[in-house]
Amino acid sequence: MRDRQRSRRRGPHPAPFRRLTNPYPFVEPLHAEQVERLHEASLRLLSEMGMRILSAEARRLFAAAGCIVEGDLVRIGSDVVDACVASAPAEFTLRSRNPDRDLHFGGRSVVFCSVGGPAFTADRAGGRRAGTRSELQQTIRLIHALPIIHQEGGGAFEALDLPAESRHLQLCLDLVRLTDRNWHATALGRERAADCIDLAAIALGTDRDGLASAPALMAIVNTNSPLTLDQPMADGLMELAGAGQVACITPFTLAGAMAPATLAGALALQNAEVLAGVCLTQLVRPGAPVMYGSFTSNVDMRSGSPAFGTPEYMKAAQAGGQLARRYGLPYRSSSTTSANSVDAQSAYESVLSLWGAVMGGANLVYHAAGWLEGGLTASREKIVTDAEVLQMLAEWLQPMTVDDDALGLDAIRDVGHGGHFFGSAHTLARYESAFYEPLVSDRRNFERWVQEGRDDTASRAAVVAEELLAAYEPPPLDPAVDDALDDFVRRRTAQYQAAGAQ
Amino acid sequence: MRDRQRSRRRGPHPAPFRRLTNPYPFVEPLHAEQVERLHEASLRLLSEMGMRILSAEARRLFAAAGCIVEGDLVRIGSDVVDACVASAPAEFTLRSRNPDRDLHFGGRSVVFCSVGGPAFTADRAGGRRAGTRSELQQTIRLIHALPIIHQEGGGAFEALDLPAESRHLQLCLDLVRLTDRNWHATALGRERAADCIDLAAIALGTDRDGLASAPALMAIVNTNSPLTLDQPMADGLMELAGAGQVACITPFTLAGAMAPATLAGALALQNAEVLAGVCLTQLVRPGAPVMYGSFTSNVDMRSGSPAFGTPEYMKAAQAGGQLARRYGLPYRSSSTTSANSVDAQSAYESVLSLWGAVMGGANLVYHAAGWLEGGLTASREKIVTDAEVLQMLAEWLQPMTVDDDALGLDAIRDVGHGGHFFGSAHTLARYESAFYEPLVSDRRNFERWVQEGRDDTASRAAVVAEELLAAYEPPPLDPAVDDALDDFVRRRTAQYQAAGAQ
Repeated sequence: MRDRQRSRRRGPHPAPFRRLTNPYPFVEPLHAEQVERLHEASLRLLSEMGMRILSAEARRLFAAAGCIVEGDLVRIGSDVVDACVASAPAEFTLRSRNPDRDLHFGGRSVVFCSVGGPAFTADRAGGRRAGTRSELQQTIRLIHALPIIHQEGGGAFEALDLPAESRHLQLCLDLVRLTDRNWHATALGRERAADCIDLAAIALGTDRDGLASAPALMAIVNTNSPLTLDQPMADGLMELAGAGQVACITPFTLAGAMAPATLAGALALQNAEVLAGVCLTQLVRPGAPVMYGSFTSNVDMRSGSPAFGTPEYMKAAQAGGQLARRYGLPYRSSSTTSANSVDAQSAYESVLSLWGAVMGGANLVYHAAGWLEGGLTASREKIVTDAEVLQMLAEWLQPMTVDDDALGLDAIRDVGHGGHFFGSAHTLARYESAFYEPLVSDRRNFERWVQEGRDDTASRAAVVAEELLAAYEPPPLDPAVDDALDDFVRRRTAQYQAAGAQ
Repeated sequence: MRDRQRSRRRGPHPAPFRRLTNPYPFVEPLHAEQVERLHEASLRLLSEMGMRILSAEARRLFAAAGCIVEGDLVRIGSDVVDACVASAPAEFTLRSRNPDRDLHFGGRSVVFCSVGGPAFTADRAGGRRAGTRSELQQTIRLIHALPIIHQEGGGAFEALDLPAESRHLQLCLDLVRLTDRNWHATALGRERAADCIDLAAIALGTDRDGLASAPALMAIVNTNSPLTLDQPMADGLMELAGAGQVACITPFTLAGAMAPATLAGALALQNAEVLAGVCLTQLVRPGAPVMYGSFTSNVDMRSGSPAFGTPEYMKAAQAGGQLARRYGLPYRSSSTTSANSVDAQSAYESVLSLWGAVMGGANLVYHAAGWLEGGLTASREKIVTDAEVLQMLAEWLQPMTVDDDALGLDAIRDVGHGGHFFGSAHTLARYESAFYEPLVSDRRNFERWVQEGRDDTASRAAVVAEELLAAYEPPPLDPAVDDALDDFVRRRTAQYQAAGAQ
């Protein structure tokens, strides 16, 4: 039986793509009055201190809505907040190049997205280093090979062999070519966001109107806490909202650094900044989809360094969900860790973050695969290890079956007292699909593990990544679409070069 | 500021002892009808197939209650089950040598207990090996040094330098001397269980009547699935129940091996066996405290090996909680992993198990610190790494504060737009205690981590264990009590030796 099973299939077998919903009650660490108190504190911050907004165009929109603008400061009253929150949709769907990969955000949906934004890439073979386009392509292929990763996070790291001002173009092109899953845009300035939108329209065979009526893009918009929205992010937000695409407003409110050294203070600040961002999207285009993003964590008490996957992080992720639901907005949280390698800490901090996010009602779990080193590095082995955990959670979220067949009372009778079920017909009929099949988890006994070299999870993950990449096949793409994308990227890259050369 | 913080305290600072309650809604994967269906399937197994019980005394008790006994088989009707479940208490408290360490089981309480039962011990320095009494003493000291471990699990591994039949005596003696926390007894036979009870009475300055009115001991009673209770465990159960101490009835229903290859089948079997054990405790002594234990996991599909910390394990832990609550019994689950070393897998499987147990309403999380290698090994570094996670969960379970002081709006005003909170009075006033302080989690930046030797979590845990053991101080013990314990152990050890020599 063991040999039969072992010879049955070789290589990793990632779980198939499936959309997830969380049927369980959310963990809510705040009482209803505490939610209101945070809401009111945020409104006071917005109306009394105001938000510093470094885009004149954005300030004009706020002024036109009746907000008090003095220099860079915009004081936002509760009437504006209420109206904007009311016009933002509670749920939305993002199209993918493959319609079977479209994603729903809101309600009880759960979407897992790969890491976005790190400066570095790392793997066992090459160590931690600045990344290249070709390495980033391999990472996109690996993400495509792991369908539990529902969405690509907008570039797992920077391709530093490409010019900074135009590398988003090559990234978008590679994303369309190498995966059929939904991907994130960049919100770093109006021009880059516009490029992402135009490329998405070409990829989906539509135009800006078509995209506005059925959106495809989401981008993370970070505020500069405390209470500042810089020009590039404000411009990116306005471009996205104007095109009916999704701004995911996410303050990085690190308690003890950019926010007070209390969760209540950090959450009040987070909430104020999210509301300011939500308002701007709705002033640009009422009804534009927008997401409530939470990224509140805390500094390390001894060193002042950022700390992730902490108990405070778990609570903030769950309290953030309560605030997002108070406003009827889809909710984004993240999987995070401070660890420098794919060791036990990287795993327990990531899973505790997931516990915070998933039980907190996150519709989007960003950075859910690959994040390492406080977000400075995207790790190949971490992508695989995280995918294992995400696959396990997806399996856990499936409903249980309790019927005569599953109960198997006849099988129990046949086996008898003290017998075993290895060879019973009931077992053999369901052996191949009865239980979750792991990617990297090891169930060998100790002796065999020693004999075979005492590998750890990270080294097994490196092998799995190689195997997945060796078996990778690109999803089909209409050659005419490919040509059109390529033309666009060439033309725009040349324009950026010309502008840079002036 | 950084230097000030760093110089402030040296060495690990474990979190203080505190009792935990879980205020959050439990995860309940079964619908109410599914719970009833499992209940009814269990009753059919008990009344139609019956339980094989290898103790004549136990069978006589069942027969006296009206059950049908044929050979070793005892058919238990629903009337007996109903009456016995009704007489078992919903909650109980266990006394500790230090009354400040008494433990409550039931309702929303959560108790973390160290690993019990492995054959081997392991640490970075000495590898995996058979353990000795002196090594087991060090492990007890380490557990005592980590107050998040509320309860000791009855020996983290076997002291193989002591004779098998009497080593429980030296273990009990060491437990009383080296920690003031509650500890587990052994249920392996009437004589051993009686020794544990007598030693507990001496340690607490009471007698068997005193212990019966205020219990101090719990022991794990494993059934031999499917549907068998062997003689030593039946005898141990009867001794414990007769003395008013707690039997924690825990079938090892491994789906695909000792149970059907479905969660429904494994849970029906688990539930039948727990109910049989609960009945026996109540037939011995109505009102005796007893615990519903769940240990349903699944085999690996490829190899037939046991697998732990799986999605099936999470679901079974949470469904098991629903069954326990249906009967109004305190609930035991566990933290588990199949990993062979303290790597990422060991962490994600353990935390996913905890997610199952804690969100499933477990009152006792057994094996919560130190379990490795499918339960064959107790690992020193895993004790420390697990304690870190348990401390984090304890912190997460604390309520949030949202008042003017915590909100810190004045501090936000003082810091201003784009400023930072490092040096603000609001931060300085709470810096030392604002956030959870880790035991082994690392927040150094990558460069410093590389410079300082690229350690991983397990190697840091080894250092923490050394430091905790170096600082260990035994809790005070009345010399008269110590003498009485020693006398008892000497006398009983000699009796076992004499019996063995016959």
